[in-house]
Amino acid sequence: MENVYIALLHYPVYNKRGTIVTTAVTNMDIHDISRAARTYGVQRFYIITPLEQQQEFVRRILHHWRNGHGASYNPWRKKALDITAVKGSLEETVEHIGEERGGRTLHIVATGASLQRPFTDLDELKKQISLNEDDYLFVFGTGWGVAQDVLDKADIFIEPIKGPSDYNHLSVRSAVSIMLDRLFRKG
Amino acid sequence: MENVYIALLHYPVYNKRGTIVTTAVTNMDIHDISRAARTYGVQRFYIITPLEQQQEFVRRILHHWRNGHGASYNPWRKKALDITAVKGSLEETVEHIGEERGGRTLHIVATGASLQRPFTDLDELKKQISLNEDDYLFVFGTGWGVAQDVLDKADIFIEPIKGPSDYNHLSVRSAVSIMLDRLFRKG
Repeated sequence: MENVYIALLHYPVYNKRGTIVTTAVTNMDIHDISRAARTYGVQRFYIITPLEQQQEFVRRILHHWRNGHGASYNPWRKKALDITAVKGSLEETVEHIGEERGGRTLHIVATGASLQRPFTDLDELKKQISLNEDDYLFVFGTGWGVAQDVLDKADIFIEPIKGPSDYNHLSVRSAVSIMLDRLFRKG
Repeated sequence: MENVYIALLHYPVYNKRGTIVTTAVTNMDIHDISRAARTYGVQRFYIITPLEQQQEFVRRILHHWRNGHGASYNPWRKKALDITAVKGSLEETVEHIGEERGGRTLHIVATGASLQRPFTDLDELKKQISLNEDDYLFVFGTGWGVAQDVLDKADIFIEPIKGPSDYNHLSVRSAVSIMLDRLFRKG
């Protein structure tokens, strides 16, 4: 799916108390989500953080697995991380997709509730993605979720992943993996 | 689902070259898989390693989040890790389930191919689990997969998770999450 992009947002997100913070990028997020994105045919996975040091941390990891010792040690990991990029903001990410795709219409998809728009059914969204030529950027939040400011930029909202229990606290790595499977699994 | 158990096996598993090894337990596996297991109503999540030091490492993490500072800091994490246990071998795990469940028939479910048995369809397995009173233990491997010796003890085989692409290298955290969603999601 050359029109599907995902992003993991580290700022602006809420912490436990509802304050807007920048979360730390974790090594496991980079690897797990790149592998899931690659498995489900996502075009690119963006790690978004405004902190220069954190961007450098991501670039070092990507370099190791793409060009350094890691590339020969594990070519499969290289293939996953080849689609991964780091950006300083959602705006920069949107701009980058525009440059790559020649400015098609880009829909920003967020997980969570909007006051204006109802949830879009996943099967409906799946059909829409496969039938038209617009681009879709799925934004996933770290911490306690993406800030309202980002939700305001989204035009499609989907329900968070729920299991059969009343417990609903998946890691973002699990949530992204399950969402990609629900949307893009074969058959 | 009080008759569903999962296990993450750290020995015996293969490494890259097909040699049997013991892999290290990672903190992220404990947290992510416990949270996914709790979300999908799994009865218990077993971390299997024969190394006493590694078992101690798991126990320390579990203690922190169940009884220590972590329990008050994040009660949701406590609720996830309450279903997690550490065992020294698959045999010990099977014994523990037997004690808890009064010795019902236990099926061991493995991901991968068997020479004797074909793959069981997931929808078929789902129906079977909800309709009978047998117990089911899903064994997931770390490293490059569970050793033949363990596969020989399984009586149900399911296909590994595949996406729409030719790339098939999910992290075990993603694979377990997706498998639980395919089997036990609502509706």
